[in-house]
Parts: sequence; structure tokens; C-alpha cells
Amino acid sequence: MTPSAYLKDTAARRQKELFAFLRFPSVSAKTEHSKDIQACAEWLADHFRAMRFQARLMPTGGHPVVYAEYTAGADRPTVLYYGHYDVQPPEPLELWKTPPFEPQIRQGYIYARGASDDKGQTFAHIKGLQAVLEATGSLPVNVKFIVEGEEEIASANLPRFLKRNRKLLKADICVVSDTAQFNKTTPAVTYGLRGIAAAEVYVYGPNRDLHSGAFGGSIANPVNVLCQMIARLHDKNNRVAVPGFYKGVRPISRVERQRLRRLPFDAGEYLRKLGAPALHGEKGFSTYERIWCRPTLDVNGITGGYQGEGSKTIIPAWASAKITMRLVDDMDPNDVLDRLERYLVRIAPKSVRVKVRKYGGARGVTVPLTGPWLQAAAAAIKKGFGKEPVFMREGGSIPVVADFKSILGLD
Amino acid sequence: MTPSAYLKDTAARRQKELFAFLRFPSVSAKTEHSKDIQACAEWLADHFRAMRFQARLMPTGGHPVVYAEYTAGADRPTVLYYGHYDVQPPEPLELWKTPPFEPQIRQGYIYARGASDDKGQTFAHIKGLQAVLEATGSLPVNVKFIVEGEEEIASANLPRFLKRNRKLLKADICVVSDTAQFNKTTPAVTYGLRGIAAAEVYVYGPNRDLHSGAFGGSIANPVNVLCQMIARLHDKNNRVAVPGFYKGVRPISRVERQRLRRLPFDAGEYLRKLGAPALHGEKGFSTYERIWCRPTLDVNGITGGYQGEGSKTIIPAWASAKITMRLVDDMDPNDVLDRLERYLVRIAPKSVRVKVRKYGGARGVTVPLTGPWLQAAAAAIKKGFGKEPVFMREGGSIPVVADFKSILGLD
Repeated sequence: MTPSAYLKDTAARRQKELFAFLRFPSVSAKTEHSKDIQACAEWLADHFRAMRFQARLMPTGGHPVVYAEYTAGADRPTVLYYGHYDVQPPEPLELWKTPPFEPQIRQGYIYARGASDDKGQTFAHIKGLQAVLEATGSLPVNVKFIVEGEEEIASANLPRFLKRNRKLLKADICVVSDTAQFNKTTPAVTYGLRGIAAAEVYVYGPNRDLHSGAFGGSIANPVNVLCQMIARLHDKNNRVAVPGFYKGVRPISRVERQRLRRLPFDAGEYLRKLGAPALHGEKGFSTYERIWCRPTLDVNGITGGYQGEGSKTIIPAWASAKITMRLVDDMDPNDVLDRLERYLVRIAPKSVRVKVRKYGGARGVTVPLTGPWLQAAAAAIKKGFGKEPVFMREGGSIPVVADFKSILGLD
Repeated sequence: MTPSAYLKDTAARRQKELFAFLRFPSVSAKTEHSKDIQACAEWLADHFRAMRFQARLMPTGGHPVVYAEYTAGADRPTVLYYGHYDVQPPEPLELWKTPPFEPQIRQGYIYARGASDDKGQTFAHIKGLQAVLEATGSLPVNVKFIVEGEEEIASANLPRFLKRNRKLLKADICVVSDTAQFNKTTPAVTYGLRGIAAAEVYVYGPNRDLHSGAFGGSIANPVNVLCQMIARLHDKNNRVAVPGFYKGVRPISRVERQRLRRLPFDAGEYLRKLGAPALHGEKGFSTYERIWCRPTLDVNGITGGYQGEGSKTIIPAWASAKITMRLVDDMDPNDVLDRLERYLVRIAPKSVRVKVRKYGGARGVTVPLTGPWLQAAAAAIKKGFGKEPVFMREGGSIPVVADFKSILGLD
């Protein structure tokens, strides 16, 4: 029997198993779900054991990691898979057509919290391995899995877990089961993720909200000042204007630019989906280059003064903005945050006080396209899907992937 | 008996009467206080009658106006007094040392809601007139009073009331009992109020909050764009940069500049009280000129994106800012709002949609310093306080004062 035949034969059972996995309300953000998290991890470990992997729950400072391994032989390469079994809170519940933890199929799609982030992808990898194992009797490589329970709450305990288990997790390559296809019909190998750095800037003016009639014109308005500062974070070409921001950014290679140019992109369709009137970004770069290969700076939220109905004529005492930057190549999050802080402090007028809170971040990651691993992944995907995958990057960040590189030395 | 002797003799009774006035919880913003409003108005009308004024409650679309008059003779000038008997809501109650509607004297100050806005000032005028009437048997001028019950809720019904009662309210000059002294020891004649115009600007980007990793760099961020637009509302000299904004603004006369320069101003004390690190305003003008004689533009509130704890990495779907402008001289609020709207729409990039909601406003008012009325007021204040008053303006707005000018033709 071939793995494909096995998969075909066992389709109904596999779907039942996936649904069982999806039924656990493994919401890591809420302590009321601790038991569900634990039950989900145990179910997954049992599942690995049933397919002849060695598996156990490993404690962290928070929710356990499910660790599983299969040994093919000391002379074989080792692949480390990473995924997560925790999910985002499902609220607001009234927007769900069917309950989030009762999986349903509608028009060929499975609807359940976690179906696409990340129980679905993790399970696909697991079941693919099981098919090869059942059909051929063995796997050609050593396999290790870590499926964590805290990805949706920033993987706070995972870096320490990686440091403590360097030997156990020794491998040749890491496969992340937490990215997407290029589109519905095109599979993809994702070879890059942007990093991230987060900060919040506070501008303080008077010691209380002031009457804008009695004082307007004589005292700096923190909202106006904050807006002026934020306006100076980009230049007229939509480049980030923080001095030294682009340190560590490498030019996009000619080969990569050509490859990205060949990827289908329909600007009209893109804008229609997002409801935005026009594209907008750094001058001199295409959309894929802007979202995958170039660093960015966005204000994620801004607050200041009166925000209720109608008007209240005040000069607010303070204003603040949450800022995140997406990083690429060799940009160092702490260095970037220091530069942002120095710049904001420098451009602020003396009539206000400025405070920048730096929340740290994670480096971006890119895997060399020329090594054997990505070619092997592409060949496997082509065999499975019957179609060449595209090579793409992802604009978002999976902070632990930088830790796999820095702690375990793994691409 | 002189008016002064009368006031001295009746001090205890007068304080008792003021306290009775202050005890009414005449909160115009809350329907639960409708009966208190009505009772307060009736008490005030009775008080006028007891001092031999003709008085009645006059209906409006909302709370009644207390109208009172005293006729000295058709050949005498007529003074129209304006004040209000309604008060702001007293919340938050926990910050009051004694209940807001149980007046108490502590270290020479009366503490009660409305004691200084505006029952105290209105009552001072009433009792001053009573003293002259009781001591001398008559008043030298005709007197009319309108004391309204909706000043704290924007005097929505007063303009129509003025239009309907043009004949009844015919007078030579209007005295507003709703401004302040220059400082604790210096009385003032306030001869100018700034006007106001209010608007709200909305910047719309994508049709929902977007993941700033997946889309950051390719789509305009409404918060960043709004900040860039607000930054362009002032130039580097802190002048308002909306084209034509200063139309109708007259240069401050040399005489007035000199007079303002002679008023005491302690920048250190001013900043210490406000807790602000430095003065900030339009280049080329002093603080009094900035807050009294020059128009301004302030953002009173700004909102956009995620404002909770920690970070949420989104490109917000929209952002908005509340803006008010203070107007002087011949600036027209609707014209200024149209100019602001046109400018904001023009400077917005094509990658967002902009909407400006205009809330209207009121003109500023200045009374000529050279006429007989202000000189008479100054002489009266000097006699009462034993000290020359200063001539000042007020940076805030009392919108109905512009209506007294435009509807009744009164300075």
C-alpha cells in the first residue's frame, strides 16, 4: 500500500480524529481553560503513541509542551517539527454561525476555532508522517515534534524550554507547521518571516485636562505634539525616518526580486478584499517586497483626550501611541527600539515630556533558498499536491522561530 | 442709609439667601432634576418680586428663563443682565469634601456646586441692585434680567427665545454675569470673548482591522495618516496652516498690546500651576495675546486602533480626531469650518477616505473699549472694590453672547 492509498482509506477516521482535536477548548489566555489545555495535550500525546512515536508532556513555567519522537537511525538526518495546540479566545461568540468548539463542514470548509491556527496544519504533518509509516513500515528520517500550548500568549516559556533541552532537540532542520498556502490552489514553501519590535510613546503636557478656551494657544497640546512626532516617523517616500532604522537591512537580491515579480498579484482584487482605496507604501518596492522583505513602522493604536460623543473643549493632559515595527534580515529589535526612543525624545518640543516604553521584540528569519532542505520540501509538496509550490515569505512574525535559530542553531 | 451700609447690615441674611439658592440641585443635563430646576427658577422669581422687580418664568423648549425687570423711566438707559441658574453635574461625588448641594464655608471660601458658576455672580449683581434700591428708594436705570436654565447644556433654546422676545429685551447694553476676576485681589472688566468652531475628522482605511505583519507596508495606516494630516494643521511658527484661517482677524492695536503688556504675568507661576514644562504658542505674541486675542486650533481628543493593555499588532480600519478652534474678531465659524474641511480633504493621500463632520460654532465678541459703558462699569467696580479693575478678555466662549449682539444688537 502507498501512503496515498492509506490516506484515502482512512479519510473518514482522520476527519473524526481532527474533529476530536478541534473540540478541546484549549484557550491558553484564560485560566478557566487550564484543564482543557491539559486534556488536549494528553490527547495529542496519546495520539502520537498510537502511531508508535514516543511521546510525553514536558512541563514549562506554564502550559506543557507535547514532545514526540521517532527514531529512524543515528545515520539519518533529523527533522524537528514545531506547532501549537492552543488557540485564540473565540469571542465575540455572536459572530459564529456554529459553536467554535463544535467543528462543522460547510461548503467544503471546516469551521472551528483552531482549524487553521494551528491544529489543522500540525495535524496535517502528523497524519502525513503516519501515512508513510503505516504504508511503508518506517520513516526515512528521524522526527521530533514540539507542539506547544502557549503560542497565542507569546510563547513566554518556550525560549527557556529550548535552552534547557538543547540536546534533546538536536536536529538538522526545523519545519514550522504554522504558516499558510500562497492561495487556495497554490501550495507554498515559506522561507522567511519578519521580526517585530514594539513600543509605546507617551507625551505629557499639563498636569490635568485644561479648558481649551482659557489656555488654548499658550500651552502645548499633547495630542497635536504627538501627531507631529508620528508624522516625522516617515519621510515623503514612505520610508521610515528614524535615523539608522535600516541598519542591517540587505538589498533584495536580483534573483529574489525576479522570483517575486513572477508571483501572481492582482492589485484590484487585493484592494477590493481589503476595502482600501489605493496601495500605499515605501517608494521603489512592489507589494510583495513591501510586506515580506522590507521593514515597516505602524501605529497600532492612539489615545488622547476626550473620545465620547459630541465635543469637550479640552487640551488633554497626555496622549499616547502604540507602535510596532516589522524587521528583516539583520535588524536587531533592541537596537531599533533604542533608535526610535532617541529620535522621539530628540524631535519632541521642550514644552512636553516624552516617555518611551520599549516592549522588546524578535528578529526576523530567512532560510537560504540554495540549501538542500527547501528543495526537499518543495519536491515533497509537489508530490503531495501535484503542483509546484511557490517560494514565499510571510510578513508576520513567529518570534520563537528566531529562537530556534539562535538557541538551537536551526534554520 | 448708603448702599454700602445696607449691604453691611444685611450680610448674614444675604448669605442665608445665597445658600438657599445654592441648595437647589439645578442640574440641567439630567432629566431627574427637572423638578429641582423648576423649583430653583420659581425661588429666584420670588426673590426678584420680594425686591420689587416684576418677575415671571418664561417657557422655552426646555427649562424656563427667569425674566425680571425694574422700570426707572422711559428716558433712562436700559441694562440687560444675563446669567444662569443651572449647574454642571457634580460627579465624581467622591472628590467632594462636603456634599455639592450643602454649601459650606472653609477658610473664607464657599464650597457648593454653582457657587462660582454661575449662581454666585448672578446673585452678586442682584444683591448690588437691591442695595441701591433699598438704600436710595430707586435705581437710576431701567434693569432687565434673563437668568436661563440651560447654559450648561449649550443654551439650545436661548437664541429662539431672544428672537421671539426682541421687543421685551430691548436695551442699551448687556452685562454678562458669567466671567471671572483677573485674580484674587484684582477685579476685572472683561470686554472680549473668543468664539468657537468644532469639527471631527475621520480617516478610513481598510474595511476592518488588518494584521500589521501580513499587510504592514502595503496599505495606508489611518492612524499614521491622520497624524500626518494633523501635523500639517500648524506651521513651524505654531500658526494655524489652514489656508485663509486668519481671514477676519484684525491686528491687535498698539494701545491694547501696551495695556496687555502692563498686566502682571509670572510665567514660572503659570507653568507651575499647570504642570507644563514650557510655554508654547504662536510666534510673535505674548501669552495674554495668545489666549485672548488670537485664534487657535486644538485637537481635544484622538482615537484609533487598539487602546487596551499591551500590544495588538493591527493596522486600524479608521482613526478620528475631535478639533475645536477658538475664533476672534470677524472670523465666521462656518467659513472657518469649510476651510478646515477643504484643507483636510486636499492634504489626505488617495489611499484613505476622509470625512469631516462640522458641528458649527459661535462668533467671538469684543466690546469697544472707548464707549461710555465700559468706563461706567470700571468706575462702578472701582467704587465697590476700592481698586481699579483691569480690562481683560476671556479665551473661552459664551456662545449666546454672540447672539445678544446679532439678534438684539447689544454690546
